[in-house]
Order: sequence, then structure tokens, then C-alpha cells
Amino acid sequence: MEINVDLSCIMVIFGGTGDLTHRKLMSAIYNLAFQDMLPKNFAIVSIGRRIFTNDQYRNQIRESVGKYSRFAMEDEKWNKLRNKIYYLDFDFRDNDGYVTLKKLLDSLDNKYNTNGNRMYYLAVAPEYFEPIVEKLKFHSMNTHENSNRRIVIEKPFGRDLKSAMYLNEKIKSAFSEENIYRIDHYLGKEMIQNIMVIRFANVLFESLWNNKYIDNIQISSSERVGVETRGGYYESSGALKDMIQNHIFQLLSLVAMEPPISLHTEDIRDEKVKLFKSIEKVTPEYIMENMVRGQYGRGKIGSKEVLAYREENKVSPTSNIETFAAMKLYIQNYRWAGVPFYIRTGKRLASKSTEIVIQFKSAEKLLYFKEFDNLEPNLLVIRIQPQEGIFFQINGKKPGVESAIIPIQMNFCQNCPLENNSPEAYERLLFDVMKGDSTLFTRWDEVEYSWKFADTILEVWRNNHPNYPNYDSGSWGPKESDELLKRDGRFWWNV
Amino acid sequence: MEINVDLSCIMVIFGGTGDLTHRKLMSAIYNLAFQDMLPKNFAIVSIGRRIFTNDQYRNQIRESVGKYSRFAMEDEKWNKLRNKIYYLDFDFRDNDGYVTLKKLLDSLDNKYNTNGNRMYYLAVAPEYFEPIVEKLKFHSMNTHENSNRRIVIEKPFGRDLKSAMYLNEKIKSAFSEENIYRIDHYLGKEMIQNIMVIRFANVLFESLWNNKYIDNIQISSSERVGVETRGGYYESSGALKDMIQNHIFQLLSLVAMEPPISLHTEDIRDEKVKLFKSIEKVTPEYIMENMVRGQYGRGKIGSKEVLAYREENKVSPTSNIETFAAMKLYIQNYRWAGVPFYIRTGKRLASKSTEIVIQFKSAEKLLYFKEFDNLEPNLLVIRIQPQEGIFFQINGKKPGVESAIIPIQMNFCQNCPLENNSPEAYERLLFDVMKGDSTLFTRWDEVEYSWKFADTILEVWRNNHPNYPNYDSGSWGPKESDELLKRDGRFWWNV
Repeated sequence: MEINVDLSCIMVIFGGTGDLTHRKLMSAIYNLAFQDMLPKNFAIVSIGRRIFTNDQYRNQIRESVGKYSRFAMEDEKWNKLRNKIYYLDFDFRDNDGYVTLKKLLDSLDNKYNTNGNRMYYLAVAPEYFEPIVEKLKFHSMNTHENSNRRIVIEKPFGRDLKSAMYLNEKIKSAFSEENIYRIDHYLGKEMIQNIMVIRFANVLFESLWNNKYIDNIQISSSERVGVETRGGYYESSGALKDMIQNHIFQLLSLVAMEPPISLHTEDIRDEKVKLFKSIEKVTPEYIMENMVRGQYGRGKIGSKEVLAYREENKVSPTSNIETFAAMKLYIQNYRWAGVPFYIRTGKRLASKSTEIVIQFKSAEKLLYFKEFDNLEPNLLVIRIQPQEGIFFQINGKKPGVESAIIPIQMNFCQNCPLENNSPEAYERLLFDVMKGDSTLFTRWDEVEYSWKFADTILEVWRNNHPNYPNYDSGSWGPKESDELLKRDGRFWWNV
Repeated sequence: MEINVDLSCIMVIFGGTGDLTHRKLMSAIYNLAFQDMLPKNFAIVSIGRRIFTNDQYRNQIRESVGKYSRFAMEDEKWNKLRNKIYYLDFDFRDNDGYVTLKKLLDSLDNKYNTNGNRMYYLAVAPEYFEPIVEKLKFHSMNTHENSNRRIVIEKPFGRDLKSAMYLNEKIKSAFSEENIYRIDHYLGKEMIQNIMVIRFANVLFESLWNNKYIDNIQISSSERVGVETRGGYYESSGALKDMIQNHIFQLLSLVAMEPPISLHTEDIRDEKVKLFKSIEKVTPEYIMENMVRGQYGRGKIGSKEVLAYREENKVSPTSNIETFAAMKLYIQNYRWAGVPFYIRTGKRLASKSTEIVIQFKSAEKLLYFKEFDNLEPNLLVIRIQPQEGIFFQINGKKPGVESAIIPIQMNFCQNCPLENNSPEAYERLLFDVMKGDSTLFTRWDEVEYSWKFADTILEVWRNNHPNYPNYDSGSWGPKESDELLKRDGRFWWNV
């Protein structure tokens, strides 16, 4: 796994004055620079509509980096990076801007020896994806002999299957699939990359990773916050599109896929798609029976009284958008037949955490399982955020003269030893784009299958009016979510 | 596992002024009293040769308890116990003494309502086992209708198979097997009781507990100290008799036995004996090839220069007693065929610890095992002393942008949270004798099989003169011990 590819490139950021660039991209770049991981031949051109000189823009970026980087601002490191940052202002639909951009890039190629390589980063609202791609193609900036021209698309990739297909066609007319990097920053998180390592670098777990030993798998992603300032966006989204279709489906595929034939990108992606194809078909009856949606009402987060979703800014007072979704899924293959996968996500829940709980089967009424009621099952928990780590629960003897058994908890915290131990997702992902490694980005057919899945559910939901709000802020969601597991004799683990 | 048996009894300690009574037995009794775990109807009669009044004796005991108990000396708790302690002085071979003892016990029966129940505790040198048992029988104190009469025998139970058989016959002529409690205080340790819980209350481990998943098992018990003041005793013992034949064989049987049909004493003991019977026969050739002995020379423990064994007090300058032993054993059954069990014990080694290391198999050259050299295997370590707990090693992603895998260590320390969390072995064991639960004591056939095993080895060793000393104090023993594993492509884990 040594890197001996040419990383050199110019990163072209569309949306250079936006929040994403200031908070995430630039601090990720600085973090890479801090660790001497940036290519020697490298430059950044940021594009926005507002008018700044290079110096003005660089000063703004310095301020943001100082605020959001996980490493301290060190002048020596910053100054080396600073001089490689350029700013251009033009409207993304304006042809003249692209002419200027092309000229600038060509001259920077000479200056920085970047060989015509480009990473186009679309840190813009989705409506600009199409025009930018079109202009890049029109100005022949999309391909170049002997250079790599990569494009990074921020989420959301479409609003549904149809719009995603349309967008994909547009991008594919200018860039080949191997040069398209559909970003899901979740995949850049340390523990998500760790899922495959835990599964395939530990014979112990891989030996147990099937329906003979596993009782059920729970994937939960809960937030304490509501929609905050994003009510406008959320009204056209909802929990299913915002979280399940992309992030949680990726988690599901990593935790449940068959071992790939190698660690190469396409082999892994093939297995992820195969997994999506193996999800048992969800009929309208199945959806009504095994999927729960919810919308938060008023309640308390900590000691603070909070508003209901329908009272939030830019939200319709009769909105039927779901802020919570839970479901049970089955995977139809020999490994997982009979093992339910429970998925849950929502806003304004009791705590903030994203984690995967693997619940192992308990024994029949044998030995200790006979002598003691309610022995806890073995659990393996992969904690993704905010804590990153692995939690393992087994049964042990209660210390003392009496004979009693208690759950023993073993915890490995990946991000505890050092506060800035874990790289930001974007660090990893930008580095991977430079390397040309798209393992942690989603291939078109992954997007396609997850939109198909989401569309099927949303159609059924659209035709059945919910009775919202149906859960209090600060709770664990609607009671139907608990009942979904209860009727299977199970419950959600909030570990 | 509720206790609804009559615990009431008089504990009769032979050797009431000895070290064991002062350091271990009395503080265990006080600890039980402190936790309100002593039977309501209870008294102690201590017997020694020195002359003390009850009050003098009680004051001495108070001092020892104050020093050795894990709980603070609280007057209220102590005074309740104090008045139940009696002292008698007589020679263990003197008939008159037993007459006096019998009278005292009968009168205490009335006073404390102990129903004629006795726990005879032989905290004496082995040469007194026989005469005491004979006298108890001669004075009809060994059995009594409607009362229980139990006898606790301290180790060593014999010096070899022959002497153990002789002793056993003597005891059996006075007490039935179910009333004989052969004590091995190792079995009272928290983590030893935990071995069965870990194995049989965790489906996860039990599913992996066989030759398909386990590469090898290592049982190590190392001490930093030498023979100290016990040179005289050790000259007639050695590492094999002192540690392996009793303690380590018990560990071996608990870790390797088949699941018993229930948690009842005899079912567990049956499985332990079955395991001993399944050990592959050790021929003289096998012993020469697969067993290593050693005797410490001079060296350094920490910064302190220490003497060789042959220079120790009460040790022969040409002694051939082993202070170190290591061996490889195989268990001949379907579960363990092909899995080596490596056993190691010694004095003056680099660190003090007793632990069982379960090393799981690594995968073939697949995925991560192909991409990365030298991935560590999964390990489960049961730490018995001085730290008590469970240690679990798996592979995880190294935090950071690079792709690397590191061993992740998950540690559960049973005795860390509170210094006095773990009961002393004797607390548990004395409580079990009162309950009539002999699970943690060794049945005659367990002793028999382990002596047979030790005798076979000792006979071969006697006929081959070693070249001592062959390891330095402060090292990990003779180099042959490392070579024993090295030629199998393995090594000792010092975790």
C-alpha cells in the first residue's frame, strides 16, 4: 500500500467563499500541509462571485484555518501554503470567467509543475453542478491528454433517482466514471474505514460474522439538534434522503458485504453493490409494517425548551417531512438470512451518536444461561461519532464471594488519547482524490440502488398522511420505533 | 444459585499459631464477617502447641487481621467475631488434647447452636495430616449423625503419587470423599472462577474455543522472587511439583475441558479428570524433546544483584532441583487435536504474572493479511495475578490518513477499580466449605492424575543430569524454553 503515484495537481474550488471551503476544505488542506502530505507540485484556485484580491482572500482563509484546523497555526507552514492559493471571481455560468480561469491554470501549471492535472471541487449548491460541468466541457477543461482531470461532487447527488440519473448523465458526458468522485464525507471518517479492517483483519470476528452467531445488527445515527438554520433545505429532504439513502446505506454495505476478492477499489465497490441488490424487496405492505417515520414536536434538550419542527424557521406549519426514520431490513443471502438489520436515524433525539451494534446470539438454556436469568448477549459496537472506537461487551464473574455474572465492558477509544489524533474526513478524502483512489467515494451504481430504495419508500409514505408531530424533542423517537423491535423480542441498544 | 443451606459450624483450626492462620485464614474470616457473610451460628477453635489464654490469642489475631485484612479494622465488627474465637494448646499427637477439644466443642455447640457441624482445617505441616486424622477418628470426631464433619487439607497433598495415595487412604478411612476439601488456593482466585464464566457465558468465545480457530494456548506463571526463606522446602519440591502439578494443571483443565453437563460440582470435576486423561501420553523421548527445566544462576532483579539458587540458604551447593519448567502438551480430542498447550513457570524471572494467553489463528494471505506483513494474531489473555482481568487484542486501523494497521488493546481490569474489590481466595474457599460446595477443591482423581503425570516426568529428569545453573536471574528462563516454541514458528507472549 505504498504511494508511488504522482499526486501533483491544481485544486480548483468552485464555491471558494462558501462555508464548506472555509470550514472544511481549507483546514483539511492546511492539516495535510502541516503533516507534509501535500504534493510538492500543488496550487489552489478558488472561485467565487464576490470580489477579493488574492491577498484579501488568503487572509480570510488564514483566519478560518486558524479557527477550524486541528493543528496550530504555524507561520512557516502556513506561508508555504498561502502563496499557492489564488482567487478568481466570476459567475459560474459566465463563459468569460472560464477563459480567464483556463489561462490562469495554464500559467500556474508552468509555475508549479502540475502537469495539467486538475481536481475540480464543486463546493456549491446542487443547481450549479450541471452548469459548471457543462462549461468545463465547453472550454475543453474536462480532459487533457497525459493529465488527470478529476471532479469532486458534493452531496446531495440528486433529489431522487430521476434527478440523480439526469445529473449523472451530464457529468458522464464530460468526465469518465473513474474520474468522478462523489463525496460522502461519512466515508472519510476513521471508524468507517475501520469497519473493513475490523472485519477482515481479525479472524476472530470474521469467523463469527454470519447468521449462525449474530442475532441482529443495529445501525443508529442520532442527533440532538433540530434542523437549526437549514429548514429550507430540510423541507425538500427529510431523514430518509438526508441520512439513510447515503450515509447509513454506506455503513450497511460495509458491515454486511461479502469479503471482496481484493482491497482494490472496484472489487470493494462490486461487493457493496451486490449487497444493495441483496436487500429483500420492500413492498408497500412491508414498508407500512416495518418502517417507521416521525417528526419532532416540542420538548426539552437538556434543560432547554425547544420548538417543534413545524415551528422552525423556513418550515411549513403543515409539513409532512420526516425528521426520524427507523426500519427493519433483511439481506437475502446465505450469510444473513434471518438476521434483521435495524436502522434508525433522527433529529432532536436523546443523544448524539452514530454507531453500529452487532448483537451476538445467546445460548440456549445451558449452564450459566440456565442458572442465571437475563444474561446479556455479547455485543460488539463500532462507534463512529462523536466518540470513535470499539466497544465490546462480554459476561464475566461479578467480583466477590457470591456467584453472580455481570456484563464486562471493554472500550477502545480511537480518538481519546489525543484530541487531534483523528484526521478530519476531508483530509483523507482530498488526499485520496490526489492519489486517484476512489475507494471511499460512491460509484454510480451504489447511488442508483440507494435512490431506488429511497424512492420506493417515499412513494408509499407520500400516499399515507402521517399524524405529526409524533415524538417529543429529547426522546428516542416515536413509540412505533421501539415497538418495531419489541415485537421481535428485541430492543434498541443505547450504549 | 441462591444459598439456602445451613452454614452453621465450628471451624477447628489445627495450626492456630502458624503463619497461614495469622495471615490468611483469620483475615479471610474477618473479611467474611465484615460483609455479614459468616453464619449466625459460628465459632472458631484454634489449636497450637504454645500456651495462650483466649484473650491473649484473640489479641494476637486482632493484630494480624488489622495488618492483613482487606477491610479496615472496625471495633463493632471485630468484637462480634472476637468472642467466638477460642484457643486450646496441645500436641497434635496427644490423646488428652482431643478429649479436651471434644468437650469444648460440645459445649460450644450448645452455646452457638452449631448442631455438631465441624470444619476441621489442617493448617499444619504435611507430616501432621495423618496423625490428626487418626486422632479425630479414634475420638469419634470424624462423623456424627445429622451433622456435617468436613476436613480441609492444605497443600501439598503428597510428595508424589505413592505418598499422595497413602495419605488419601488415611483420610478416606475417616472422612468420605464428599467431606474432604483438598485446598488449592489458586482455585479461589477471582479470575480462575472467571475462566468458566468467560468460556460458557459468552457464546462468542465458546464458538471459537477449538482447533479450528485457536492456534495455541500458553499458560505462564512467573515469579521475580527466588526461594527466599523456603530453600529447605523447595529442595524437596521444585517447579514441577510446586506449581505445575497443582496450580497450572488446574488452569489447564479449566481452560481446556469440555463443557460440563451442568454447573454442579461433580459434573465439572468429571470434565476436569476427563481432560487430564486426554493429555497425550508423555514418553521419555517426548519429555527429553518437549520439556525444559532450569535452575537460576546469579543475576539482577531490578537493580539488585541476587544469588544463584545453589547459593541460597538451606540449599545444596550441588542441587539439581529445577526452579523453572516449560513444556508443550497436546490434548487428544476433537476439540484440541493439533493445538499445542505451552506451559511455563519459574522463579527469578523478568516479571511476576500468571496468565493464560489464547492465541487465535491468523488468516491465509488474504486481503489485509496479504497487503500487510506481520499482522498480529487476535489474542485473548486471562490475567490471573497480580493484575486480574481480561485483555483482548484485535487489529484496527491506525489513526491517520495513511493506510496502516495496528494492534488495538482492550483491557478489562477486574481488580483495578477498587483496591480491595477482589475477595481473597481464602474468603471464597472458606465460605464454600461452610456451604458444602467443593467445586473449587480438587477431587482425589484429579490429584491422582496430576501426580501420575509429574512422576513420569520426574523419573526421566532424575536419570539425566542437568547442567545447572542454566539461566540468569531476571531473564525469561533457559534459552531452550524459547527454542521450544521457536521451532514451531511461535514465541511466548509476554503481554
